[in-house]
Amino acid sequence: MPHLPDHLLTGYRNFMSGRYLAESGRYRSLAREGQSPETMIVACCDSRAAPEAIFDAGPGELFVLRNVGNLVPPYAPDDQFHSTSAALEFAVQSLKVKNIVVMGHGRCGGIRAALDSTAAPLSPGDFIGKWMSLIAPAAETVSSSTFMTATERQTALERISIRYSIANLRTFPCVSILEGKGRLSLHGAWFDISTGELWVMNKETGDFERPEMT
Amino acid sequence: MPHLPDHLLTGYRNFMSGRYLAESGRYRSLAREGQSPETMIVACCDSRAAPEAIFDAGPGELFVLRNVGNLVPPYAPDDQFHSTSAALEFAVQSLKVKNIVVMGHGRCGGIRAALDSTAAPLSPGDFIGKWMSLIAPAAETVSSSTFMTATERQTALERISIRYSIANLRTFPCVSILEGKGRLSLHGAWFDISTGELWVMNKETGDFERPEMT
Amino acid sequence: MPHLPDHLLTGYRNFMSGRYLAESGRYRSLAREGQSPETMIVACCDSRAAPEAIFDAGPGELFVLRNVGNLVPPYAPDDQFHSTSAALEFAVQSLKVKNIVVMGHGRCGGIRAALDSTAAPLSPGDFIGKWMSLIAPAAETVSSSTFMTATERQTALERISIRYSIANLRTFPCVSILEGKGRLSLHGAWFDISTGELWVMNKETGDFERPEMT
Amino acid sequence: MPHLPDHLLTGYRNFMSGRYLAESGRYRSLAREGQSPETMIVACCDSRAAPEAIFDAGPGELFVLRNVGNLVPPYAPDDQFHSTSAALEFAVQSLKVKNIVVMGHGRCGGIRAALDSTAAPLSPGDFIGKWMSLIAPAAETVSSSTFMTATERQTALERISIRYSIANLRTFPCVSILEGKGRLSLHGAWFDISTGELWVMNKETGDFERPEMT
Repeated sequence: MPHLPDHLLTGYRNFMSGRYLAESGRYRSLAREGQSPETMIVACCDSRAAPEAIFDAGPGELFVLRNVGNLVPPYAPDDQFHSTSAALEFAVQSLKVKNIVVMGHGRCGGIRAALDSTAAPLSPGDFIGKWMSLIAPAAETVSSSTFMTATERQTALERISIRYSIANLRTFPCVSILEGKGRLSLHGAWFDISTGELWVMNKETGDFERPEMT
Repeated sequence: MPHLPDHLLTGYRNFMSGRYLAESGRYRSLAREGQSPETMIVACCDSRAAPEAIFDAGPGELFVLRNVGNLVPPYAPDDQFHSTSAALEFAVQSLKVKNIVVMGHGRCGGIRAALDSTAAPLSPGDFIGKWMSLIAPAAETVSSSTFMTATERQTALERISIRYSIANLRTFPCVSILEGKGRLSLHGAWFDISTGELWVMNKETGDFERPEMT
Repeated sequence: MPHLPDHLLTGYRNFMSGRYLAESGRYRSLAREGQSPETMIVACCDSRAAPEAIFDAGPGELFVLRNVGNLVPPYAPDDQFHSTSAALEFAVQSLKVKNIVVMGHGRCGGIRAALDSTAAPLSPGDFIGKWMSLIAPAAETVSSSTFMTATERQTALERISIRYSIANLRTFPCVSILEGKGRLSLHGAWFDISTGELWVMNKETGDFERPEMT
Repeated sequence: MPHLPDHLLTGYRNFMSGRYLAESGRYRSLAREGQSPETMIVACCDSRAAPEAIFDAGPGELFVLRNVGNLVPPYAPDDQFHSTSAALEFAVQSLKVKNIVVMGHGRCGGIRAALDSTAAPLSPGDFIGKWMSLIAPAAETVSSSTFMTATERQTALERISIRYSIANLRTFPCVSILEGKGRLSLHGAWFDISTGELWVMNKETGDFERPEMT
């Protein structure tokens, strides 16, 4: 017997009788002609921050990479398996997306782990520890800001990590060249799970601000 | 000025006046109490196969890792940055998900790249080439199955890669131990973009079959 | 000739024909019976953050101390002239206010001065430099958080200074005793000049959050 | 939970739906471009004499220092924390205000305390006693003027303290130099809570007179 958890089967049936029924033409045409999304999103795995929900995006619209903490490691051509770099390369070189948005969010468990240097590894492999060590220098600085509350430190590092990932995007030659030619734009955004607000990065200052809603 | 591509801003406004307005209580409670998704999905970055759409999932329901080809590399504790292993460790050890679903899909560009051994790298770093080389042995065998059509070879490798990723999941001690205790279930699924059909893996045989829809 | 700047005379005439005309009974009764405000506000001198405007407060409602940076120095009984301690003592002991609110605000020039250790004194007396040195330890820590943007550092220190002033309020025996008896409440708030939003301090965590507006 | 006294929350909601809604453009522009008030007001903390009400002043118009009794201590460069001198220095040197108005008012509790030499200190620190001792010589003389009524003595000291503060303003080199160059004007005013009348100081005579209202 094929088997899926019940909540997924129920959800899938809703999809078939709802969204798919309404958009079957679009799905068929996307299958026939291939995808051509304008935008790549680098987002977190968090169950509360799905990019398609936040951007009300339909099929074919967003090419979405999701990892813990929405991190982009720096360019490092070697013989390792780089899942993030592979997705980036595919989006930029093959799909020729016009925008890359790094979207972080509040109350991120990965960022929390990065700030808690005293936590035991989750497993002997300590994969989360190593992954989040990408932002270790910033995490250490922020951790020592003891005048800030725990939440303030967390938000600060969440936003720092977005700027860090955008800076790393520019270490990829294909990204920096296309951005220089005006054919690729890089953006940052931070989602507040509680209020639903999206704070968008100001490209000049690096600050996060709420866009006009009208 | 903060800046986002227009289609994202428009979508975000729809989210705020639609889904967020309808589910603000749920978002607030998820912010306050943290996420506790039952299920982790390993899916592809493809813009046509968003797990939340296919499973009609609301906020808090799915912890979603997305990379090109929905691949899980084998367990390899070393000093590298493993984004996939980090997400897996976080989902299993910290969130204690009960299910992991590896969801592939038809017309996958990453799988197509794996089948085309003559293609030039997309960039000097060849990140996609290295990433898809995870399934190189299977890709080579399938490529040489010249009695199958190109589409049949593509579908075959898409499904092989799902079984491969599930097998790799079991190389992680935390996964195999919890699966042995009956506290974690592994599933495979394959989404047909054109028809909207989800084919679910039969755990005994490894075959992909359509679930009952009633 | 009595003389006032024109804009003040014009404004005063508006007051007489507007608010005073509408509320003369209230003014007369407040003159006759004395003031009995429930709340003291410690606010900044900034022209953009008048407490009566932000709290839409009428005559008799708010006892308002305003200095640069809305700072409360620690309790220090000596032979100096303590304008802040005098106002605090008068509000708590004589007027018996029930609430003290320390209200800071964004883009505060005093806080900016505290963060800029390289700035020359504004005058040989360097009164601003000495006054803002009350928060020098926090200012130094925040200044060194180079991963944060200038605006992020500024907001961080603005909020830290509110918590600092509230902590100093508790060094006054009359405040801590009455707070302990439940007869005096201490609050923090931060006003965002641009959006008009008031962020209110959470007493448990020290975080600043927006209150429900319904 | 963030928490504010109910009357403040209600007032803040009125502000948002009233004044802020009407003047959001002005608030935004003041946030973006900074404040540049023409006038500094030195006023009392009294809840019945808010300068923004009396001068019908909008955001950005008045830089307001408020302490008990609207006192300016004399210039005293030392290593103490001088909140009044700091605000004065900031207004004159950084904001380059053109006017400073010392505004007293009737029925001032601080002035009453200064006149009552038999009153016990409000607390062991006796901060009000020390603060009001700035005008002790005048207070003693006025107290002994037994031919005047209690109300006359009170009004007399209120007005004396305004002239005293203006004289002290001139002990600050930055004030006296700029006044000498005609770039800074000093003014006195006294507000009658009961009638709403503002009495303005005549610079030649020091008398307080009501301005023409037409």
